[in-house]
Amino acid sequence: MPLISLLTDFGLLDSFVGEMKAVILSIYPDARIVDITHQVEKFDVRMGAFLLAGAAAYFPAGTVHVAVIDPGVGSIRRPIVVETRRAVYVGPDNGLLVPAAQREGILHVYELTTRSFMREKVSATFHGRDVFAPAAAHLASGKQPADCGPEVTDYVQPPYTKPKFDGKRITCEVFHIDGFGNIVTNASNETEKLGLEFRDKVSLTLEKRRFQARFVRTYSDLEGKELGILVGSHGFLEIACREDSAADRLKVRTGSAVHVGAV
Amino acid sequence: MPLISLLTDFGLLDSFVGEMKAVILSIYPDARIVDITHQVEKFDVRMGAFLLAGAAAYFPAGTVHVAVIDPGVGSIRRPIVVETRRAVYVGPDNGLLVPAAQREGILHVYELTTRSFMREKVSATFHGRDVFAPAAAHLASGKQPADCGPEVTDYVQPPYTKPKFDGKRITCEVFHIDGFGNIVTNASNETEKLGLEFRDKVSLTLEKRRFQARFVRTYSDLEGKELGILVGSHGFLEIACREDSAADRLKVRTGSAVHVGAV
Amino acid sequence: MPLISLLTDFGLLDSFVGEMKAVILSIYPDARIVDITHQVEKFDVRMGAFLLAGAAAYFPAGTVHVAVIDPGVGSIRRPIVVETRRAVYVGPDNGLLVPAAQREGILHVYELTTRSFMREKVSATFHGRDVFAPAAAHLASGKQPADCGPEVTDYVQPPYTKPKFDGKRITCEVFHIDGFGNIVTNASNETEKLGLEFRDKVSLTLEKRRFQARFVRTYSDLEGKELGILVGSHGFLEIACREDSAADRLKVRTGSAVHVGAV
Repeated sequence: MPLISLLTDFGLLDSFVGEMKAVILSIYPDARIVDITHQVEKFDVRMGAFLLAGAAAYFPAGTVHVAVIDPGVGSIRRPIVVETRRAVYVGPDNGLLVPAAQREGILHVYELTTRSFMREKVSATFHGRDVFAPAAAHLASGKQPADCGPEVTDYVQPPYTKPKFDGKRITCEVFHIDGFGNIVTNASNETEKLGLEFRDKVSLTLEKRRFQARFVRTYSDLEGKELGILVGSHGFLEIACREDSAADRLKVRTGSAVHVGAV
Repeated sequence: MPLISLLTDFGLLDSFVGEMKAVILSIYPDARIVDITHQVEKFDVRMGAFLLAGAAAYFPAGTVHVAVIDPGVGSIRRPIVVETRRAVYVGPDNGLLVPAAQREGILHVYELTTRSFMREKVSATFHGRDVFAPAAAHLASGKQPADCGPEVTDYVQPPYTKPKFDGKRITCEVFHIDGFGNIVTNASNETEKLGLEFRDKVSLTLEKRRFQARFVRTYSDLEGKELGILVGSHGFLEIACREDSAADRLKVRTGSAVHVGAV
Repeated sequence: MPLISLLTDFGLLDSFVGEMKAVILSIYPDARIVDITHQVEKFDVRMGAFLLAGAAAYFPAGTVHVAVIDPGVGSIRRPIVVETRRAVYVGPDNGLLVPAAQREGILHVYELTTRSFMREKVSATFHGRDVFAPAAAHLASGKQPADCGPEVTDYVQPPYTKPKFDGKRITCEVFHIDGFGNIVTNASNETEKLGLEFRDKVSLTLEKRRFQARFVRTYSDLEGKELGILVGSHGFLEIACREDSAADRLKVRTGSAVHVGAV
């Protein structure tokens, strides 16, 4: 009995998420549903893609992930189903699903066209409830991704740049500010290339401003108001303070360029 | 095995919602519980009633809906159970349950007086946990609405006005500002009376200020900073911007009068 | 089949809570998980301990409670498992679990060292996912607290003072501001010592400022902007206004000293 995960930018004020769950359970009463988050910044496909890619690895094999950040709802952007070596992803064709799916190895991508996998009446503004949720329920209850529609290969790629290492410095970008104010970048195994050891000093450039930081293992290794960099729980380099918000202190936004080098 | 839905103004900061679920699962361990929302504006019975009425249709027949927005908790307002053609509603007798129940067809309304359906000790301030949650668990596990107490007919009506159409203009009110800043009104099939076609221009009056808008199918049909009106995912007329908050832009609150007419 | 409850300061923006649930369900697919709250003030062990102690009593016997507010994650603070007469608690050894466990009667406290109860790779910054969640899944699926590691007796006590009654006045402190702005103190049965009857006037001193209040049964017993004190739904004395935030009005924080006396 596979899990169904949900990730959206719908927030928790409205009944949107509850309606998606009600639709899933109407089709597949035994479904077990886990929320990843519903508080992705509105329309921020990049942030949603990052959170989905970080979280998916912790779900059991066979999970059906539904992700909906969908500024193009009701327009010509396609609904897609992505089958990977480990899981199935359902959502809009705007790059949102791709980073998570690529980490697991994409097998096939299908356009979701099978009418019987959708609600009878499909609204123009809420495909999460009327298209993606019912498809996920059908997939979790045993239907195959290939039943969803024709295979496609021209799906939209995510709007990411790749981190670079020039022998001295890593150049990466801010992907996410977490709820603690930690500044999470898209650099992962690049950190090893710097040859840093714990407690080493590091030079940090953020939007042309320079800072000194210390490379540490965990937040409580930092002292007082010291800045730190560390490898966070999803394997990405992050900039942090001890029991304080690094993002507030450095006034950083997602998308900002970051340079990290040994001192 | 019916679902139990929860809608409250309790927020997610406190343990209130968790305690309701713990009480339900103590009585009926197999209960499947779906949150509609817990972030209704504090004490806003009107907003809660609107969200419940919009969401209920997506739940399977037989669902037990628990809704608690309860400024009169512990005072003489009655707890009630409403049996409809499709579902059962449990909550305070203050109008909250009525719009959802009316949409489905009300069969009977009972005052909830059966002492064995409540917790042994009933606090004066938290009937959500001590009265409504246990009653819902008993109802979901097979007890009948008629077992809850005596039938009543003088239940409280919701504080709504009905939208009007004078042959030229719809007069309605703002019912809800959703998490995207879309301004949702209580006009539903009245829109057809205007005889609008997609892309038609529309005149909008909000608190005596006039605006032009375009009638569209979905958000992404709007261009730039243009205002739009459309029929939202619950069938109500809403005022929207593309990837922006119409409520912030027009500085509108719930309860404001809205006039919509063809240009 | 025991419940698993979750209480953290992780918030709902990130995927942290979803990952904890995914890990639990990977180990123990039949787990039923109930969120108490994830919006404890960041690093506020005192607030988390209070909410956990208030909520735990409403869960069925045998529940496994996982609580993670963990400024010392990855450092030398120990992970512990507390076995009580009613339930099992899993979390950091920083006082968070103790008030809830003490209310139920602590039987044994174990340091969590059994490697097979953790994820294979344990990150330095997210023990909620890598240590506490998997241990809870193993405990809920039948493993014994004594299997978790060696018994310890020198666990950390919570940072609380006890309320006092000097024959005339109760001296207590603000433990929590709830989502409605009610000011919750740590005084419980002390209120009986004042010999108050409903509608009696009460003198209140908060941070050296004096107020008059009325002792009431529930919020709606208050009139207009009157201040009230009442025994809240967890049995603690609280200061409240009718449909308004007492905390905003009195500008109070957690930890503030409160004196309450009959007039």
